[in-house]
Amino acid sequence: MADINSRLEIGVTTGPIRGSRKIYVPAQANPSIKVAMREIDLEPSSGEPPVRVYDTSGPYTDPDAVIDISAGLPALRREWQLARGDVEGYEPREVKPEDNGQLGPDRSGGVPAFPTTLRKPLRAKAGGNISQMYYAKQGIITPEMEYVAERENLGRARLAQYNRSGESFGAAIPDYVTPEFVRDEVARGRAIIPSNVNHPESEPMAIGRNFLVKINANIGNSAVASDVASEVDKMVWSIRWGADTVMDLSTGRNIHDTREWILRNSPVPIGTVPIYQALEKVGGIAEDLTWDIFRDTLIEQAEQGVDYFTIHAGVRLPFIPLAAKRMTGIVSRGGSIMAKWCLAHHKESFLYEHYDEITEIMKAYDIAYSLGDGLRPGSIYDANDEAQFAELYTLGELTKKAWEQDVQVMIEGPGHVPMHKIKENMDKQLEACGEAPFYTLGPLTTDIAPGYDHITSGIGAAQIGWYGTAMLCYVTPKEHLGLPDRDDVKVGVVTYKLAAHAADLAKGHPAAQVRDDALSKARFEFRWRDQFNLSLDPDTAEEYHDQTLPAEGAKTAHFCSMCGPKFCSMKISQEVRDFAAKQNQPSTGFLAVEDAEKGMEEMSRVYKDKGNELYLPADEVTEPNKA
Amino acid sequence: MADINSRLEIGVTTGPIRGSRKIYVPAQANPSIKVAMREIDLEPSSGEPPVRVYDTSGPYTDPDAVIDISAGLPALRREWQLARGDVEGYEPREVKPEDNGQLGPDRSGGVPAFPTTLRKPLRAKAGGNISQMYYAKQGIITPEMEYVAERENLGRARLAQYNRSGESFGAAIPDYVTPEFVRDEVARGRAIIPSNVNHPESEPMAIGRNFLVKINANIGNSAVASDVASEVDKMVWSIRWGADTVMDLSTGRNIHDTREWILRNSPVPIGTVPIYQALEKVGGIAEDLTWDIFRDTLIEQAEQGVDYFTIHAGVRLPFIPLAAKRMTGIVSRGGSIMAKWCLAHHKESFLYEHYDEITEIMKAYDIAYSLGDGLRPGSIYDANDEAQFAELYTLGELTKKAWEQDVQVMIEGPGHVPMHKIKENMDKQLEACGEAPFYTLGPLTTDIAPGYDHITSGIGAAQIGWYGTAMLCYVTPKEHLGLPDRDDVKVGVVTYKLAAHAADLAKGHPAAQVRDDALSKARFEFRWRDQFNLSLDPDTAEEYHDQTLPAEGAKTAHFCSMCGPKFCSMKISQEVRDFAAKQNQPSTGFLAVEDAEKGMEEMSRVYKDKGNELYLPADEVTEPNKA
Repeated sequence: MADINSRLEIGVTTGPIRGSRKIYVPAQANPSIKVAMREIDLEPSSGEPPVRVYDTSGPYTDPDAVIDISAGLPALRREWQLARGDVEGYEPREVKPEDNGQLGPDRSGGVPAFPTTLRKPLRAKAGGNISQMYYAKQGIITPEMEYVAERENLGRARLAQYNRSGESFGAAIPDYVTPEFVRDEVARGRAIIPSNVNHPESEPMAIGRNFLVKINANIGNSAVASDVASEVDKMVWSIRWGADTVMDLSTGRNIHDTREWILRNSPVPIGTVPIYQALEKVGGIAEDLTWDIFRDTLIEQAEQGVDYFTIHAGVRLPFIPLAAKRMTGIVSRGGSIMAKWCLAHHKESFLYEHYDEITEIMKAYDIAYSLGDGLRPGSIYDANDEAQFAELYTLGELTKKAWEQDVQVMIEGPGHVPMHKIKENMDKQLEACGEAPFYTLGPLTTDIAPGYDHITSGIGAAQIGWYGTAMLCYVTPKEHLGLPDRDDVKVGVVTYKLAAHAADLAKGHPAAQVRDDALSKARFEFRWRDQFNLSLDPDTAEEYHDQTLPAEGAKTAHFCSMCGPKFCSMKISQEVRDFAAKQNQPSTGFLAVEDAEKGMEEMSRVYKDKGNELYLPADEVTEPNKA
Repeated sequence: MADINSRLEIGVTTGPIRGSRKIYVPAQANPSIKVAMREIDLEPSSGEPPVRVYDTSGPYTDPDAVIDISAGLPALRREWQLARGDVEGYEPREVKPEDNGQLGPDRSGGVPAFPTTLRKPLRAKAGGNISQMYYAKQGIITPEMEYVAERENLGRARLAQYNRSGESFGAAIPDYVTPEFVRDEVARGRAIIPSNVNHPESEPMAIGRNFLVKINANIGNSAVASDVASEVDKMVWSIRWGADTVMDLSTGRNIHDTREWILRNSPVPIGTVPIYQALEKVGGIAEDLTWDIFRDTLIEQAEQGVDYFTIHAGVRLPFIPLAAKRMTGIVSRGGSIMAKWCLAHHKESFLYEHYDEITEIMKAYDIAYSLGDGLRPGSIYDANDEAQFAELYTLGELTKKAWEQDVQVMIEGPGHVPMHKIKENMDKQLEACGEAPFYTLGPLTTDIAPGYDHITSGIGAAQIGWYGTAMLCYVTPKEHLGLPDRDDVKVGVVTYKLAAHAADLAKGHPAAQVRDDALSKARFEFRWRDQFNLSLDPDTAEEYHDQTLPAEGAKTAHFCSMCGPKFCSMKISQEVRDFAAKQNQPSTGFLAVEDAEKGMEEMSRVYKDKGNELYLPADEVTEPNKA
């Protein structure tokens, strides 16, 4: 048995993200709540304030935090939960051998079960409801909501500088996020705060159309590859680069243990697709699935602390033949498992039949529904078809049923959709599901670029995020081809982070532009280090720069490698600006230039006197005039 | 002196692109014209016809072609040119030392001047006009137009299978492209066929809103890096992956020789920014530029065969102060050079003043204008500002002036633009420039991801391509950071190829979907090889696949590495389909399922009898039913 205390066992990346400092900002409404963010300091010469950025990386990027993977993260939310006095601890369901799969090779990579803590699982007291939506509807503002408000307000302080522009397609993004606004959005179902009572390690975050667009990273081992340690490492790696939530899609063996290691060490909400594990419990034979086995799996995962469940309750028997007309049938794993079950028994889906019972479980732990789109299109050809929308409208019904019990819901979306059919998905979802948050996979805007599907889907993700999708599920370069490795996870996360940010800009999200402006200003002023540090991936930015101009001096050079010293357009426009400024001449003066021969000669002389130099000492580089 | 006959001197990649055959299709209207395409054969078991794809790679991918870089490519269009009887050969301008730059180190990498051929340059007979637009307006259908028609009709034969869907925002894409349609589009200025009489090696292609969206790749050495051999190699490499045109943006020394090597070996139109070379001729001092030096440079490049010139004639003196208000001033090299000249002399731009003389030169060689956007925004902050649109409207005037002399024109566009401001760019361009083809750089939809700007810009490129942009100028991962190497060029080209294709799909381009459908069908049927071969980058697709499942057997396996055998949704949906089909039961039958208990039990029994197997022998894998 491997020594679990050895760092070699499960190695994760720790330490600051270069160029930024971890900070904890007290929530305005409740200073005892400290909200994690990062701050990027700019060169003193710039006279620019530090830039605050949203941070999903958890304690791993805090040099002062003690990281012990085998002990897990501190239980940030435990106090808040207990203070509400509406939960009870109880003897957990006993872990059974089949929880880790009966068949196939051991894929734990030698990692033993997570050292069991004495902690008992919590749940709502009998008949109670501990969902954030329940509290919200009661008019209660929870610490989770206060945390979210502070977290989302990032950079809003500088808002005054900005004229908001953007097209939000009917969203209602406020200038400033108050805890009351968060409560109201959760109460009306327009936002969710996934927060299983048994995952107190997670830092509260909101998924909703009127908040920053979020991204999810999928990890998880499969029957053919991967092991527990590498999945924990991938989780930490993906949140380092910006994943707001992580889904553990493990199949095959060691599912229970893998999930436990991930949950205990995750500062972001964790989602799963419980049907995957249930199927393992029946040896992979879909038709052998039963409601009891599925229910038992929900309890098992609820007690571990999974924050949201993908439930494919919209894959109804009557819709299955519609999928038979397709070019690529059913591409959702969960959807196809349920379709097979329905056909084998020729009965309605047990997920649909037992939906209210599932909801009862969700509310006792505050697990959010992620209603799965088991009939999403798997190709451009199948986009926006009858099967897809039949399911979407069913998800709408199910949303309302969940809301009747005050359970939080988001809706999963496609898939493969050409650009001109993307907006219809958003519009129908908003209408059918009462503005419940939309959570989409891409969509991929063409099928012809395997190996580049992070890009074919990033194009669709940016658009649907702009139209109103609340969370974008990333796609890696390995999509359709293989399991993502560490590098693929990073590329997928950064690609989706930039797509989500492009959507925030287009929606006119207040102050989303602060970071773009800071980076562009740094670029214009040749503050290379600031440019690297302000980018989503400082390491790659500097590495690429150094491939052409490795010299340290080049990082302070007043030109870029693309043009070289003589051609530098940035330098020239700095001169243009300085020159125009020195003339103290309004633009209109220039417009009447034809009548000013004499003035022109004068200006020309002044300019020549100034030296016609391409280089100015750094201290002469003036601030761009934003007037 | 290096031995120019040694392959080591200038090595380029030759041989077929894996999985496809080079074919030459006789033009319907004129079978003597053979149009280059590629065909991808699919597994015989599939019963699918080969898929024809647009091919920009030239003779380099034809195993039967003899490639000799030092001899250049065959003069495909020479006969057609001479047959028109309106050109004359003449003694070329003598190559001067300053043509290759006077200053800085030799960056030829040891490559000598291209072995001078005896060929004399051609130009229109005195006072004549040999532009494709001139012929078009005369009602003449040229072989170039016939070539383009055949080339664009790719896959249209299968059109019958498709219901066209899409939103083209007012474009007029025909079901079938006739030579007459091409002529009409060129005559009205809505499309151009860049074809300098002195670049007979190029294969005719059209850039226009009603044709397939094209992409351009920029190459070129700069004062700080790169050499001649690597630029020729990059040109061949970029067209291999799909670049429709290539711009040589070389600066510093060896400009003339580098360009000659590229032109003589390029089957795609070559564009340049002549002001770069003119500036070298005056030692890099913008204010020393004169009309005579610029004019001499135009003649020099016209005789070499450059197909389109970027001319920044819209950077007028009165607009320059508008740029002073910006966060990032003037980011266009050409634009900043002209701005500096205008300020130094305080005179109107000599490009604007001598515009008609430039046009005289263009028409004598059939060089197309690419009117440069010297005032494009360099940051999200500066997008769609006064300076940018003031220039755009000037480019509109200049377009009409060029059309008066029947000279072909396209218009360059931004830049950095958030998604919600992209469409305004397209709408204003169509209005201001009379539907002259728009040629945009990205646009980049956020500034915060240096190192990923092929993606931030691919998002914008796909959108503006959908809205009507005719050609997308690629951006590589090195944008803002360094000079692209071979790998960056490939990533940039493939990214833009997929963005252009996503745009074609969204515009409802006839049969654009043929390739997507063929690939998705192959994916559904587990024809891995077909999936690789149909993708834009077969090598990367297979490499990624093999990282998870290297075994040869895995390429015929009926499951994918993401899910493993038990979970395969593709397999399950195949069963769903087979099952539904075997029942010969209309969907409606299923909808009334509640009233059919007995029938359900029967179906259930039948299914079980069938074996409930996850695996069916390959020969039982039936064709998707497209009904």
